[in-house]
Amino acid sequence: MRAAVFRDADLVAADIPEPKANDGQVLVKTLACGICGSDLHAFHHAPQMVDMSKRVGSNFVMDLTRDIVFGHEFVAEVLEHGPNTEKKHKAGTRVCSMPVAFSSSGAFTLGYSNDLPGGFAERMVLSEMLLLEVPNGLSTEQAALTEPMAVGWHAVQKANITPEDVPLVIGCGPVGLAVIAGLKLKGVHPIIAADFSPARRKLAETMGADIVIDPATVSPYKTWTDEATPEGYDAKSLVALLGLGPKMRPGVFFECVGVPGVIQKMMEGAPRQARIIIVGVCMEKDTIEPFFGITKELNVQYVLGYTPEEFAQTLHHLGEGLIDGSALVTGKVGVADVKQAFTELGNPEKHAKILVEPWH
Amino acid sequence: MRAAVFRDADLVAADIPEPKANDGQVLVKTLACGICGSDLHAFHHAPQMVDMSKRVGSNFVMDLTRDIVFGHEFVAEVLEHGPNTEKKHKAGTRVCSMPVAFSSSGAFTLGYSNDLPGGFAERMVLSEMLLLEVPNGLSTEQAALTEPMAVGWHAVQKANITPEDVPLVIGCGPVGLAVIAGLKLKGVHPIIAADFSPARRKLAETMGADIVIDPATVSPYKTWTDEATPEGYDAKSLVALLGLGPKMRPGVFFECVGVPGVIQKMMEGAPRQARIIIVGVCMEKDTIEPFFGITKELNVQYVLGYTPEEFAQTLHHLGEGLIDGSALVTGKVGVADVKQAFTELGNPEKHAKILVEPWH
Repeated sequence: MRAAVFRDADLVAADIPEPKANDGQVLVKTLACGICGSDLHAFHHAPQMVDMSKRVGSNFVMDLTRDIVFGHEFVAEVLEHGPNTEKKHKAGTRVCSMPVAFSSSGAFTLGYSNDLPGGFAERMVLSEMLLLEVPNGLSTEQAALTEPMAVGWHAVQKANITPEDVPLVIGCGPVGLAVIAGLKLKGVHPIIAADFSPARRKLAETMGADIVIDPATVSPYKTWTDEATPEGYDAKSLVALLGLGPKMRPGVFFECVGVPGVIQKMMEGAPRQARIIIVGVCMEKDTIEPFFGITKELNVQYVLGYTPEEFAQTLHHLGEGLIDGSALVTGKVGVADVKQAFTELGNPEKHAKILVEPWH
Repeated sequence: MRAAVFRDADLVAADIPEPKANDGQVLVKTLACGICGSDLHAFHHAPQMVDMSKRVGSNFVMDLTRDIVFGHEFVAEVLEHGPNTEKKHKAGTRVCSMPVAFSSSGAFTLGYSNDLPGGFAERMVLSEMLLLEVPNGLSTEQAALTEPMAVGWHAVQKANITPEDVPLVIGCGPVGLAVIAGLKLKGVHPIIAADFSPARRKLAETMGADIVIDPATVSPYKTWTDEATPEGYDAKSLVALLGLGPKMRPGVFFECVGVPGVIQKMMEGAPRQARIIIVGVCMEKDTIEPFFGITKELNVQYVLGYTPEEFAQTLHHLGEGLIDGSALVTGKVGVADVKQAFTELGNPEKHAKILVEPWH
């Protein structure tokens, strides 16, 4: 079958062996699979990622001498059931799954495994027990957003956000946009979002941000440090919304950039007692000045992934139209063009999420 | 009056003007005042401290061209009441106070103020509204521990510690010892504490640590990462205490060292979902690898100081004998020997807390 293969530090379209559905597994046709920032990171910094995986004690360490098929944001169609399956979803059913598959020899992280292909391949094997049927006639395109949107939903859950809080999302790439969608679901307002890219700020508004800020013109933290107003926003209503002054509402700051320096900037900008939620995945060394955290008694919550429940809830949210992610999908490619798509994703004005359609 | 004065980057015994009790203030005789790690830091790195105070937006920035009398862990005796006081505490009453004083021109941080002397001076002025009478015949020596012990009590409160948690205290200087005392008050067991110094480990036991670890011989984090046993501790009972294995109890890790590198070590050592409480005050740049926090979904809570309630509770705890800090006081000096004491505090085998007795 055809797949975009990570091989010898390159991404190539190649023929690879068909996967076989073993005990408890289902063979599926990949309908669509989003390209994630982590895929870009793995492509550009694979040895560093392997090193970090070892250092954090992960059971899942890529062997870079062998092929890997990336892709963990997939929606697929059931083809065949392997042995010892309940056959709950008949052939033709569209399904999502958390990007994990179990076998008698252990678990595999789909998308970063040497043993099972990820979603940039025509076919995959999934664990039947993790399959979730795409509900309610939801489009394949939107169903493919379940995984990235679940990341945002999880981050909002871990933030223990309450209607009292005022959230600020730093970075409006797919991670930040997913957080905004999660915040909107929680009914917290105003949702403030900041990104240097005009296109990303527009997407932030589409996903539910009430106030968008260009950090090049005004500090997103100014809202808390004084009563300055983001450009174009009415001062009085902003002050009223935030309850600034003696009754200033607590700030919850989502780091959705994942590059060194951002955490320190947030610690400098955050008001006393703020919570900072680290959603962006930074694999490099970073420099902080703890004294900023200390004098403000900041709380920093690092988050990763989602629970199975949050994943299922997110598919439900998409199915019910509670999240509309259609604006996020800015491109579709076949396996031959995955490498080109990885490059194009570097331009935030043009792209947010590109879906790979391996059957294409 | 005599005082140990921070002047021209040196600590000198000198005569300085008597302070005068203004509106709402009380003139007191300083009976004893502990030397804090922050005093040592201010002595050795005053320009850096001024710079950091400015950068974090503090209202209290030392002017290094003028005299400063350090000392914020004091117990004192009421001498005279200023105007507009209620005279609740008659002359001769021993009192503690949070190291803040109010005047018509604002608030002063006693111990780091250019305008009012701290506790390394024979006399001070305090705000009557903050005075707490030393209860129950508590010794002056122990009453002087109210401030540092309140720091530990506050840290434990901010950690939201529950009996389910297993606390690990990294660093058993006065801050770590205060945290241990706070944990003991909370009834959380086992309290695990780690320090390279044998004397500090002994003090940790005295203050309530159930298990003390020499990090030179065994990693304090090993308890969580595998079922290895701190040297000299019975494996089975430790495993039982910690509920290791599938039912491993949550780890709450207190950073009580305050030097660069420790936070990263703790992020590397901590188990998944652990909370790290930053109590040590690090004023330097520090390097972390956020990926450790991310993959483990760590929570990092920075803390500082205490609330007025926590300060009062701590004096009560000391008064009721719920905390016995007598082992911490390892020396007493007059103002002439403060500089020498600052040097001697560098030896953890010899000293934990030295009290200045300015009347001596």
